[in-house]
Amino acid sequence: MESNKENNHLTADIREAGRAARALSSSSAEKRNDLLRRIRDGLFADAHGIFEANRRDMSAAETEGETSSLMKRLVFDRCKLDAVQDGLVAVEALPDPIGTVEERRLLDDGLVLEKVRFPLGVIGMIFEARPDALVQIVSLCIKSGNGIVLKGGREALETNKALVASIRSSCASHPLGSGWMVHLESRGDVDFILGMDKDIDLLIPRGSNSFVQHVMSNTRIPVLGHADGICAIYVDKDADVTMAVRLAVDSKTQYPAACNSIETLLVHQAIAPVFLPEAAAALEGNGVKLKGDEATCRIIAVEKASPQDYDTEFISLTLAVKVVESYEEAVEHIAEHGSGHTDCIVTENEGLARRFMRDVDSSDVFWNCSTRFADGFRFGLGAEVGISTGKIHARGPVGLDGLVNGRWLLKGQGHVVSDYSGASPRKFKHQELPADSPSMAAEN
Amino acid sequence: MESNKENNHLTADIREAGRAARALSSSSAEKRNDLLRRIRDGLFADAHGIFEANRRDMSAAETEGETSSLMKRLVFDRCKLDAVQDGLVAVEALPDPIGTVEERRLLDDGLVLEKVRFPLGVIGMIFEARPDALVQIVSLCIKSGNGIVLKGGREALETNKALVASIRSSCASHPLGSGWMVHLESRGDVDFILGMDKDIDLLIPRGSNSFVQHVMSNTRIPVLGHADGICAIYVDKDADVTMAVRLAVDSKTQYPAACNSIETLLVHQAIAPVFLPEAAAALEGNGVKLKGDEATCRIIAVEKASPQDYDTEFISLTLAVKVVESYEEAVEHIAEHGSGHTDCIVTENEGLARRFMRDVDSSDVFWNCSTRFADGFRFGLGAEVGISTGKIHARGPVGLDGLVNGRWLLKGQGHVVSDYSGASPRKFKHQELPADSPSMAAEN
Repeated sequence: MESNKENNHLTADIREAGRAARALSSSSAEKRNDLLRRIRDGLFADAHGIFEANRRDMSAAETEGETSSLMKRLVFDRCKLDAVQDGLVAVEALPDPIGTVEERRLLDDGLVLEKVRFPLGVIGMIFEARPDALVQIVSLCIKSGNGIVLKGGREALETNKALVASIRSSCASHPLGSGWMVHLESRGDVDFILGMDKDIDLLIPRGSNSFVQHVMSNTRIPVLGHADGICAIYVDKDADVTMAVRLAVDSKTQYPAACNSIETLLVHQAIAPVFLPEAAAALEGNGVKLKGDEATCRIIAVEKASPQDYDTEFISLTLAVKVVESYEEAVEHIAEHGSGHTDCIVTENEGLARRFMRDVDSSDVFWNCSTRFADGFRFGLGAEVGISTGKIHARGPVGLDGLVNGRWLLKGQGHVVSDYSGASPRKFKHQELPADSPSMAAEN
Repeated sequence: MESNKENNHLTADIREAGRAARALSSSSAEKRNDLLRRIRDGLFADAHGIFEANRRDMSAAETEGETSSLMKRLVFDRCKLDAVQDGLVAVEALPDPIGTVEERRLLDDGLVLEKVRFPLGVIGMIFEARPDALVQIVSLCIKSGNGIVLKGGREALETNKALVASIRSSCASHPLGSGWMVHLESRGDVDFILGMDKDIDLLIPRGSNSFVQHVMSNTRIPVLGHADGICAIYVDKDADVTMAVRLAVDSKTQYPAACNSIETLLVHQAIAPVFLPEAAAALEGNGVKLKGDEATCRIIAVEKASPQDYDTEFISLTLAVKVVESYEEAVEHIAEHGSGHTDCIVTENEGLARRFMRDVDSSDVFWNCSTRFADGFRFGLGAEVGISTGKIHARGPVGLDGLVNGRWLLKGQGHVVSDYSGASPRKFKHQELPADSPSMAAEN
């Protein structure tokens, strides 16, 4: 009974977020930026209370013996606040993602078609115990005119509640209000919203593979994200060995827990006898544990890999090595065992590199550079909402662009379709027009 | 047991389609166009057998007492063959959708990023009993480098089998073969493939609302399409009454069974006394049955509408009319009861029309023209794979563009991320570059 009551309340709040988001969506960029500035000022004014809430989360986490990497993400101090405020300034400075004209076409005299970018509606975002992420996500949704349903990691609950309270009070006196934001406080709420496919337009779950899988299997709402990050480097027979070693080390060790770190090293048989000993020395020197197939083990003394090792996201300093007989075998291995995230070829053969970029259907396909570059900030997207390994909507690192989509506007002067059918139908002109002026939906 | 055997067979065929599609995807436009030409010649050569198969379908449909509109779609004669062949020529003439550079950015010296369009992989397409649609769908998938799993309406099975046999034999001697195509012959096969989310990248179901709902509820594969088509015209107080009547008649009667026909007519109270009598005369003169709310019934003598009438896709000559007190009420009604397909405002007030285009979050939002224009051909997209009412990937009429998506290519010279972190990190340049030259993945 209690749970139903709460759910009714949640349903109402999320529907209200949809309505409030429509107001955000049709408001000017200036008004949305004004909201961002108010939030920034509010966080500054409310800093004391937010830090205090964070200290409660931190000491609870310490008591529970959480890892130091979790504690590092969880802390919200003056330094994190500064970064969050810089982030708000940066998002404010990004170009308005709403209203961009993607296409403009004259269908016939007086009948003009435009494809114009608008927000998606309401985004459901479930993310790790990182309070700074909450502010970033809120800022991206305001900027893109979307409503947001937020659920942060449970370890950050007190901090998140303080942040949400601050944001709400900053927006209270603004005409756009804060109804576009709903904060979920329990995992049960997350399971409940998975059924709200009429009211939530996109889910972006971040977190463990099993959690993302759980979300994907239990909702009709489109999901943007990635479960696995099984990335590979293929060292071609025409690779520069020194470069290949350097790229393998960076791609594996620069941040082993990241989804864009490699789990698999594929090596062409012709270069393996030269490359593998050098690579093993450098990787093992950086603490990497190698596991290899039979051909690898004939060249370097490493543990024998099991077949499952090539389907495993180690998220640690373990790397599965495999010697391949050909380029084709490498591409086939990536298609079979990779997760479509980020894969790289190391070669001096330009024709082959170009072919690899066509043949490998991953979100990011790289040539002679570290897989660790697969990231919204490094790509220059301004901000990142997540990384998608799906094939539709947005692939790879997703910035503000992934929170908007083109819809069609058509302006006529009383045009009817019956004039274009029947005995002597009018013909369409279908003439492309320049798309660089404001859309027909812009305020005039 | 037998069913499992078949399913194993189907699984293998669909995986093979994925592999064959990768070859399609990385082949040149010329080779894909060559395949289209061979299919065209083959259909011409095999016409006799195809017509014979169609006569079997037609006489079975006649025996079963199918409707004349089904029979019209089902027939495949010389005239349909001519149209199909023209269609193949038209698809051949479309620009290559693969390899378009959407963005190009210099991340740092020697480190260049591109976002380039590539096929999605394998498309599952379930469509009505229209044999000509089979050829069109196959041609669009070849052109866009996607594998295709096809299931046509059961009434067209013999014709479809003959078409598929002809297409397969035309492609047999071509290096790209015909493994990218899988033809399903039973509804059970459709239910089976709904579970193949690792091997099928997008489903496009066309057909009844309940069938599309069934697909959406029973798969993790992304679905592009629409269940309902509840479209509305809002006649504003500043509408040109003659134009509004003309648009209502065309939008309702030009093809009442189409998803872009209107089911709802919203009328501002200030114009209702003038507009409704004229509209009723014109609509009823065209065989339309009107149902109205109380305010409507006070002005014209029509049947009282039930609340459900405003949530119903009549797909027939019934139209629900409602008098609204304000623009806001009209927008709210569309948000609440519409299906996000196509909605139109009739007004001479430009500022209000612009606002409507921002406020109404439907795939197609029109001003002073018939909702029946919401169609890929009329929009000038060349060909249409379906109409989507989803918010992500592609909205509204979807052409070849919806069968490709941008993925990220990055070319370096041994660049590693560790140089961009730590004590004195290198800074990214993030400099936009012109995107009008061929991508780094193009054959050189």
